[in-house]
Amino acid sequence: MDDVAPDVAAEEDAGPAAFCPQFHQAVELIGRRWSGAIIRALLVGRTRFCEVTVAIPGLSDRLLSERLKELEAEDIVSRTVIPDTPVKIEYHLTAKGAALGEVFAAISAWADQYPVPGR
Amino acid sequence: MDDVAPDVAAEEDAGPAAFCPQFHQAVELIGRRWSGAIIRALLVGRTRFCEVTVAIPGLSDRLLSERLKELEAEDIVSRTVIPDTPVKIEYHLTAKGAALGEVFAAISAWADQYPVPGR
Repeated sequence: MDDVAPDVAAEEDAGPAAFCPQFHQAVELIGRRWSGAIIRALLVGRTRFCEVTVAIPGLSDRLLSERLKELEAEDIVSRTVIPDTPVKIEYHLTAKGAALGEVFAAISAWADQYPVPGR
Repeated sequence: MDDVAPDVAAEEDAGPAAFCPQFHQAVELIGRRWSGAIIRALLVGRTRFCEVTVAIPGLSDRLLSERLKELEAEDIVSRTVIPDTPVKIEYHLTAKGAALGEVFAAISAWADQYPVPGR
């Protein structure tokens, strides 16, 4: 095997691709600044804007609002307006967002096993 | 249950925390621009700098070099100098980096099930 010069293009046909656009978009979506923390807060049952800001130290209202809009556009979060007095707004994960539970469990397990050194 | 005012602090004691610093660092580490794609290329067997740049469209040599240094500092990648003529440099995942295989498999499965809409 080793006497054959490596051919990156041929290798890509043979095994898992070294680059996969879908994977790339997915990993950068969940890893975008604050997005992972926001999705996690919704995964464990937070539904209100203020509950999420209280839970995540350092997250500003402006950034939370921006990220929630992005996550809505990506069909990960749904926004429900409850016609009460005053009007209540709740955020829930869609089926697509809830399916990230397994990804997040794997990340948590890895983070427990190999803590990232403090910066 | 619903007659008790929600108390975020008490809820955090009861169930999984809405915010976990270790999780937060881990998800933003793998989601940092290009890092996920680079780790994936190493996971599927790329070892040389040029193999990684060839595999990942849009990744510049400068950014790959920067990310590899960060991943080395985080003990995810190890750099081996092979005293050949010319000197060969190989990049491999450490045990900590290789353990990301399960995380990446979960992300790939999610990305296959729910493709991110094109931007």
